[in-house]
Amino acid sequence: MPDRIVQELTAIVGPDAILYKKEDLLAYECDGYTIHKGLSRAVVFPSTTEEVAAVVKYLHNKKIPFIPRGAGTGLSGGATPLGGEVIISLVRMKKLLHVDLENRLAVVQPGFVNLKLTHSISHKGYYYAPDPSSQYACTIGGNVAENAGGAHCLKYGVTTNHVLGLEVVLSDGKVVEIGGVPDAPGYDLVGLLTGSEGTLGIVTKIIVRILKNPEAKRTVLAYFDTVEAASYTVSDIIAAGIVPAALEMMDTVAIQGVEAGTYPVVHPPGIKALLLAEVDGIAAGIDEQVERIVGICEKRGVVDVKVARDEKEHMRWWANRKTAFAAMGSISPDYLVQDGVIPRSRLPEVLAEIQTISERSGLRIANVFHAGDGNLHPLILFDARKPGEAELAVRVGSEVLKVCADVGGTITGEHGVGIEKKEEMRYVFSEEEIEAQIQIREVFNPENLLNPDKLFPTPGRCAEVKKGRQ
Amino acid sequence: MPDRIVQELTAIVGPDAILYKKEDLLAYECDGYTIHKGLSRAVVFPSTTEEVAAVVKYLHNKKIPFIPRGAGTGLSGGATPLGGEVIISLVRMKKLLHVDLENRLAVVQPGFVNLKLTHSISHKGYYYAPDPSSQYACTIGGNVAENAGGAHCLKYGVTTNHVLGLEVVLSDGKVVEIGGVPDAPGYDLVGLLTGSEGTLGIVTKIIVRILKNPEAKRTVLAYFDTVEAASYTVSDIIAAGIVPAALEMMDTVAIQGVEAGTYPVVHPPGIKALLLAEVDGIAAGIDEQVERIVGICEKRGVVDVKVARDEKEHMRWWANRKTAFAAMGSISPDYLVQDGVIPRSRLPEVLAEIQTISERSGLRIANVFHAGDGNLHPLILFDARKPGEAELAVRVGSEVLKVCADVGGTITGEHGVGIEKKEEMRYVFSEEEIEAQIQIREVFNPENLLNPDKLFPTPGRCAEVKKGRQ
Repeated sequence: MPDRIVQELTAIVGPDAILYKKEDLLAYECDGYTIHKGLSRAVVFPSTTEEVAAVVKYLHNKKIPFIPRGAGTGLSGGATPLGGEVIISLVRMKKLLHVDLENRLAVVQPGFVNLKLTHSISHKGYYYAPDPSSQYACTIGGNVAENAGGAHCLKYGVTTNHVLGLEVVLSDGKVVEIGGVPDAPGYDLVGLLTGSEGTLGIVTKIIVRILKNPEAKRTVLAYFDTVEAASYTVSDIIAAGIVPAALEMMDTVAIQGVEAGTYPVVHPPGIKALLLAEVDGIAAGIDEQVERIVGICEKRGVVDVKVARDEKEHMRWWANRKTAFAAMGSISPDYLVQDGVIPRSRLPEVLAEIQTISERSGLRIANVFHAGDGNLHPLILFDARKPGEAELAVRVGSEVLKVCADVGGTITGEHGVGIEKKEEMRYVFSEEEIEAQIQIREVFNPENLLNPDKLFPTPGRCAEVKKGRQ
Repeated sequence: MPDRIVQELTAIVGPDAILYKKEDLLAYECDGYTIHKGLSRAVVFPSTTEEVAAVVKYLHNKKIPFIPRGAGTGLSGGATPLGGEVIISLVRMKKLLHVDLENRLAVVQPGFVNLKLTHSISHKGYYYAPDPSSQYACTIGGNVAENAGGAHCLKYGVTTNHVLGLEVVLSDGKVVEIGGVPDAPGYDLVGLLTGSEGTLGIVTKIIVRILKNPEAKRTVLAYFDTVEAASYTVSDIIAAGIVPAALEMMDTVAIQGVEAGTYPVVHPPGIKALLLAEVDGIAAGIDEQVERIVGICEKRGVVDVKVARDEKEHMRWWANRKTAFAAMGSISPDYLVQDGVIPRSRLPEVLAEIQTISERSGLRIANVFHAGDGNLHPLILFDARKPGEAELAVRVGSEVLKVCADVGGTITGEHGVGIEKKEEMRYVFSEEEIEAQIQIREVFNPENLLNPDKLFPTPGRCAEVKKGRQ
């Protein structure tokens, strides 16, 4: 028998757009970060901005916390309930509302799947640049919440560089539109909302920038017998003034994983690191760029280097890379993806430190990462059935983030903070800097009903800096 | 005899670092926007972050409003006193603190002149991308405050895309560091501060991205006998998937101005519009890009098109363009620069409307603009000695901005809102959207001492949306 709140929510969204039985809620107990789980009170599936606004208004009046959710592919627990929240799933708001090729923009609902946008416009010669590895499933609304990245962000930037405007349901149910043009006057609220992990509002419409397909692209795959040689090759490519569309690296454990996965490439045995570099742009001159990359690889003692012969080979190499996380399931019962950022020049040293942490902890760590922009994804392999090993994996992840922070990097490049890295925010922010952010949250979300207890460490409050406030 | 406040400020910064006599203050009665003028109480010239913090703490305690100021080249009155404020000039904080070529960043003090950064690193093959026309004089601190743009922002983005981190003195004198790495976790406070026009804090240190010099560049100059043909050429170039580093346009009145200025190019007579396009990048293939641009110009009936033969010609063409505003002084006693943004596809129609406004008002309007990204700079020519003509120019400017807003554009691309466009903010923001921004300001600047009465319309307050606030 549904309780009163479920009944009233049902009255807003209709009986086909709500889940509240425990067995149904179990599917929503976490997102792609499976370490923490929690039970929500209900999951609603609004179909319109008006329904989102009505649900939020209702919950705001009842002082019930709520969590926006896209496809649930997030990797830091941003959409995971802590207990008793109402999840507002945006997956039914999945329309492509408008495409304006001439002005290079598209308007989508938040539940529209990332890759579908490119599929919808590719026949006209356009695409949407941010390409998280989960792009076949993840939604653009979720991408905005997490400021999602992807392999091609080296050249094209992360989600925030592609969002022009937003329609947002505020924490009390009011609907506002912000932005709409690049670099609008006033404070950059679109930038502020993007990456705010569902704590400032619920995005119900997104204007994104779309790009013209590059006339040509080439993909280079290079094998190295040391991680250092691969790292220096990355630095040399960038130093040469080449801006690859993507510049990815995998180490030996990661290579073992992908070779055991769904899209093996048959990489040669004994390889310690591989680089996958893509260049794109105007056709004229692209082969010269490839030659220069190959030349740099050779100078750094590459074992073997090859250029994709055709689109099929290009796609196969990328499938191998993009499914790397999932492929770890083939070599380990469980794995935890981390997401740290370091200055590119510190790559060899940080990878060595990660190796030391791995040996000390006894957990294998695979490194799959966006080398060009120093965004590491250490995959910590563990077995949850062994007592204490999940906890150990979490501690190892935190240690790795500390290393990243200590060399002047940060604790997340694209996966967000969520539940997972709340405490690690202290590695990179002072108490005052965290407090300044919490004060911003209070402007938009004064009662902390919107995705509470995420993003910032608990308690994280500091009375001293609040004295100047009205 | 200096008053008590001047004496106490002198005790902080020293007697050589303060101006307070009326004849000295007159030099600070406005910035590059000369329509509004006001007298400050004093101008202080701190040399360190500590001095800035001490000055701010003092003024905060005394509840005296204050205005940060860079080189005073701003074009919307952001650094203009309204009466009685203390101006905090950052021009003595002009050091280049650190350059890290490997990680592509530089750390500068706010008074460091924009172009000096490129001059300091160009021998190593690097440069700083944002290039406002005033770059020989304007400071990077001022650029951050205004989120300054420039001709090359079409390809490289405006200032916010190049700022990695900031040291900021808050309104009560506390010093915080924010950002430091690209896409840091938490709310994007660096993005929020950038373009906040001195209302949220005083930037005392800036970490900027630096770029590798492009291997090659080419500049194309094309003449058209209609503005429409030039506009369509712009659209065609972008539609062809070419991303020029810059794509500039001048109309016939602007051409008359630059030809009478310091750097004439001897453009052919009777021309209605000229385009200046620059492509840069890897040397291989660049000539093919130029050929394609020339081909597109020819298809659109270009009168004449040529490619710069050498660096000298390239520099001369750019000097002609970059000094266009100042050159208007040769054909008109006074001029007012406007700064609107429109969707690129609406160029011909908006230029026609501007022409209508010009004819109706009797004031000539020259158009000099970043055509590639739809950022218009109508220069409204007037004679301040004729009674009422300055006021008419201001009204005409506002009318032009209304046209921009009405076609889905906005009221400033790179010059900021300042005093000039406070009221025009209503063209693009609802009362609630303005109120949300004012609430953000209150977090950082609760007593509105920092650059008060700028950026937002007066009164701009709306009781209704405040009810949810703590």
